[in-house]
Amino acid sequence: MPAQLTDIVAVLRNTPATLTALLRDLSPHWTHANYGPDTFSPFDVVGHLIHGEMTDWIPRLTIILEHGVARPFEPFDRYAMYQLSEGRTMAELLDEFARRRTESLNALEGFDLGEADLAKTGMHPALGVVTARQLLSAWVAHDLNHIHQVAKAMAYQYREAAQPIAAYLGVLKDFRS
Amino acid sequence: MPAQLTDIVAVLRNTPATLTALLRDLSPHWTHANYGPDTFSPFDVVGHLIHGEMTDWIPRLTIILEHGVARPFEPFDRYAMYQLSEGRTMAELLDEFARRRTESLNALEGFDLGEADLAKTGMHPALGVVTARQLLSAWVAHDLNHIHQVAKAMAYQYREAAQPIAAYLGVLKDFRS
Repeated sequence: MPAQLTDIVAVLRNTPATLTALLRDLSPHWTHANYGPDTFSPFDVVGHLIHGEMTDWIPRLTIILEHGVARPFEPFDRYAMYQLSEGRTMAELLDEFARRRTESLNALEGFDLGEADLAKTGMHPALGVVTARQLLSAWVAHDLNHIHQVAKAMAYQYREAAQPIAAYLGVLKDFRS
Repeated sequence: MPAQLTDIVAVLRNTPATLTALLRDLSPHWTHANYGPDTFSPFDVVGHLIHGEMTDWIPRLTIILEHGVARPFEPFDRYAMYQLSEGRTMAELLDEFARRRTESLNALEGFDLGEADLAKTGMHPALGVVTARQLLSAWVAHDLNHIHQVAKAMAYQYREAAQPIAAYLGVLKDFRS
């Protein structure tokens, strides 16, 4: 496996355990609160990550490997989880995400990608030509983006209670990033 | 235990497992890289959290309970970990943080705080009078701030590789927050 892919997979493999450690068995006060209008709660984030496993990362990589730029990726619905997660518990979503991530990494391993494969290209519906390397790099950055967002949403719940000391905390300085 | 304290402890208890899941067994490429001058790497963050357990949260709470505002807190050195962590491994720091956090939560439980205790006050060296409730709220917000920061430092390592798709990721829009 190319070194960069090893590096990416090491983090992708950890994400379900990270989110489970952070979120499992917490009250809805922590898991279902967001940080402003149109922002994601931790519950929303895990649903969004599940949807990504189902429709984004491995499906798009498969299109690159099988069709190249000839078949554009399906657009990804960043809000699909509002419907998909409805009526489910945080624990159910965490378990499903862990299961689907394992399946995704098994599929990735099955492709046995080499350096030449990472240079193969696909057609993003909004961004144009992207390489498999860019797609896989975006996958790991996307995981980290949403771990970052979960911590932000949670910290936001204590933005007032933690004053004045919280003045030192970068996470509370900009609620929209 | 007051409801708010239960809420705080639930997250404080999870932080070592969260950081261990996220960071253990990763290469130094992930753990020892920061996101710009004067920013913390994940390795720096865990050292900083250890130092907080040793000198900040429970020591300051103890001063509040024993001395009130009569004895100001010791100033906290936010950069002490550069020396304390030198020559140690990420795994060693994660283990030490987990052990010290358990000790801190045992001490907190031993105080058996009630609502009246949460209103007790101490003297912050820079911010003036703060309550035990504010100190404990800042503790949990501080944990979340640094989980947020670890994810940011890691995402930053893929800021270029993940383009153009990373344009959608909030974590990569402002490296300084």
